[in-house]
Amino acid sequence: MHSTASKASGFIGLMIVQIILLALFWLFVRYSDEALPSDEGKVLGEQHVSKYPHFQDVQVMIYIGFGFLMTFLRKYGYSATGYTLFMTALVIQWCILVKGFFHMEDGKIGLSLVSIIDADIAAAVPLISMGALLGRTTPIQLLFMALIEIVLFAANEYVALNIFSICDVGGSITVHAFGAYFGLAVSLMLRPGKDQNEAGKYEGANYASDIFAMVGTLFLYVYWPSFNSVLADGNGQERAILNTYLSLAAATVTTFIVSALVSHENKLDMVHVQNSTLAGGVAIGTVCNLLVGSHGAILIGIIAGCISVLGYRYLTPRITAALGIHDTCGVHNLHGMPAVLSAIASAIFANFVTQENYKSELGAIFPAMVGATENSNSTIILGGYNRTASTQAGYQLCGIAVTLLVAIVGGVLTGAALKYTGVRKLQKDEQHQDELFWEVPENKED
Amino acid sequence: MHSTASKASGFIGLMIVQIILLALFWLFVRYSDEALPSDEGKVLGEQHVSKYPHFQDVQVMIYIGFGFLMTFLRKYGYSATGYTLFMTALVIQWCILVKGFFHMEDGKIGLSLVSIIDADIAAAVPLISMGALLGRTTPIQLLFMALIEIVLFAANEYVALNIFSICDVGGSITVHAFGAYFGLAVSLMLRPGKDQNEAGKYEGANYASDIFAMVGTLFLYVYWPSFNSVLADGNGQERAILNTYLSLAAATVTTFIVSALVSHENKLDMVHVQNSTLAGGVAIGTVCNLLVGSHGAILIGIIAGCISVLGYRYLTPRITAALGIHDTCGVHNLHGMPAVLSAIASAIFANFVTQENYKSELGAIFPAMVGATENSNSTIILGGYNRTASTQAGYQLCGIAVTLLVAIVGGVLTGAALKYTGVRKLQKDEQHQDELFWEVPENKED
Repeated sequence: MHSTASKASGFIGLMIVQIILLALFWLFVRYSDEALPSDEGKVLGEQHVSKYPHFQDVQVMIYIGFGFLMTFLRKYGYSATGYTLFMTALVIQWCILVKGFFHMEDGKIGLSLVSIIDADIAAAVPLISMGALLGRTTPIQLLFMALIEIVLFAANEYVALNIFSICDVGGSITVHAFGAYFGLAVSLMLRPGKDQNEAGKYEGANYASDIFAMVGTLFLYVYWPSFNSVLADGNGQERAILNTYLSLAAATVTTFIVSALVSHENKLDMVHVQNSTLAGGVAIGTVCNLLVGSHGAILIGIIAGCISVLGYRYLTPRITAALGIHDTCGVHNLHGMPAVLSAIASAIFANFVTQENYKSELGAIFPAMVGATENSNSTIILGGYNRTASTQAGYQLCGIAVTLLVAIVGGVLTGAALKYTGVRKLQKDEQHQDELFWEVPENKED
Repeated sequence: MHSTASKASGFIGLMIVQIILLALFWLFVRYSDEALPSDEGKVLGEQHVSKYPHFQDVQVMIYIGFGFLMTFLRKYGYSATGYTLFMTALVIQWCILVKGFFHMEDGKIGLSLVSIIDADIAAAVPLISMGALLGRTTPIQLLFMALIEIVLFAANEYVALNIFSICDVGGSITVHAFGAYFGLAVSLMLRPGKDQNEAGKYEGANYASDIFAMVGTLFLYVYWPSFNSVLADGNGQERAILNTYLSLAAATVTTFIVSALVSHENKLDMVHVQNSTLAGGVAIGTVCNLLVGSHGAILIGIIAGCISVLGYRYLTPRITAALGIHDTCGVHNLHGMPAVLSAIASAIFANFVTQENYKSELGAIFPAMVGATENSNSTIILGGYNRTASTQAGYQLCGIAVTLLVAIVGGVLTGAALKYTGVRKLQKDEQHQDELFWEVPENKED
């Protein structure tokens, strides 16, 4: 039995974290100009508020999309929806501070609508990692992991966007690849003994839990164009919407077809339908505001749907068997591989970028190719300005390589900390079920 | 048993369709100016992006609203949500092409936010037809039907809006009536033998599936004002929102009351609550941007709620008995009759249209009454410009009459194709359950 005292001390630790967050906000965070009563901030404020519907769509994805997607486990629905809410509420506060430290002015962090858009996007990172670990950690372990992960994520994102100056408007490299491979690395460290590699007793869906999970899938699907386009500017925003819309559609059609073709008796598999349909949103993320063409978006979607379903069917069981890595939600197939595909696609399309075809948008999308502009968020650029297209392509590949390195090394170290410190771990028969940490009503017949 | 080979060949056929779509996009589809890097397209891009929140609401209606509304069948929830997603993902690609062919420039189809709004609206058409057939077709049959239906829908819509030049901003005539009567005509052709007219073994709800269906109902209800107003311009957009809001409210109040009055022991019927509450949204659709007055909107809602509940209670069983037409979701009561009501209302209100009361909006709403304007989407107008109000009223009735004709004849022919070609049909005991096409988990107790 889990000792009540160790549970209580974990939660008291989290209360202390919340109070430290309060103190840090008090000391460092101030409203930005556009959130203050001032005439100068008004124009900026109006620009920002035009992103509010996009922000709200991202909110739905994070809380309802991720939360419900993970309810497919039949005895873990309280945890899936509950920990999503708990973790996100903690992470967004932490993220405003951590990302803010990279962009302080006069020792203060400015708070604006953009800060909370960034925070919501960052919240996706530990939620993706949670998908790999779902049902095999305590909430204390999860939240501890999330706090470390956000720091590494923010540092890696800063390197990728501000030093390598890569394009990644939909966050496939910095968010999806990072979250997936970090989670898988943690899962590697938390792998059970050789003799315990079979699925957990409660690891599986029932009819109702599979339909709950579709609530998550469908909200993620519907709002993914908002996620990918929320940080895009100018006409690139409309391209990001259109390309994401088409890539998702093509991945979905492909998912159903490939699922039926590779499954037992040619029956559709709900795991594929719930997850691989969304791989098109990940795979288009890095390139969604580029001139990939509608056919390019559809082609990327088709490839993403294929590799995702085939990954679930053939690769995941082999990874589990060979390395002992459990991946409860299959984040490697939904986020990991499609994100790497997106990075490769970005290197390919970067080769075709010229001043002629991107015109005034070039500075916003590839700042290192034209030199610093007002739109650029690059403060330091490795290798200087006036990059050639092929150099930019190389940096895109550097971006994913460094991301994978930071995520895997960081995940291994974080996993080791969760494993070898005094933090309480779950026993095999305590996994994939709510009862240890939740009051669960008895199953009454009437 | 269903032969695995025939299933596989159906899915391979669909993969070929997806690859043909990719090729057609490659050949014909290009980003519109507002989605290209250009300073000229920027203003247009900003105008379009202002419709993005409306578009997202329509997305929720299509994927979550329609998908979950159909989960009321207790053993058909995977199919309801899954096929909604599959069909829509295929149909939106096809629709961009088919509608694009009617408006090509220099042999190319322009892709913009408006294209994908149109595609989402068009996706409602085969989803409504699917409601009539729910549980009685294979997914292969459904998708085959959808591909044909979209062509006929687009042609009929072109005739109604660009040749007859009718008003139908909420799509009650072109979308709801078309989808409902097409589906009923297909259902007529697929009717079982005389001896098999009773309900299927699995045709019915359970407690949880009825609550899942309410997720669909409530999202459809909440976002219906967005569906009806997304294509409206100027102040007509605000009228469309207000009138739809009120008509839905009045239909809902009426639905609960009439449901209790006509049902066994005066108990409320979830079928009515899930569906007839929405009839107000359909019935106001064609006239929602006209000067119907708030009382007009409420009156239309009351009538819609009445005819919809009475249709479920008295008409549907008689249609099934007399013609053998099964209508699983009762689309005749939610979409069919309320859409005809909307068309009749539009003919009545068209009689009161004058240049004085509509001022500068007349050209946008009734282009044939003032001559071609910039806002007009009419390329050919039957009978020329400067139509009188009563002529416009006549054309409104022509619009619904031709729509019913095309839908019913097209549905009969499509149904015949599904029945008499080699496409695999379901046996009676295979209906209304997921197991034939889905891996379904065993019902585990723990």
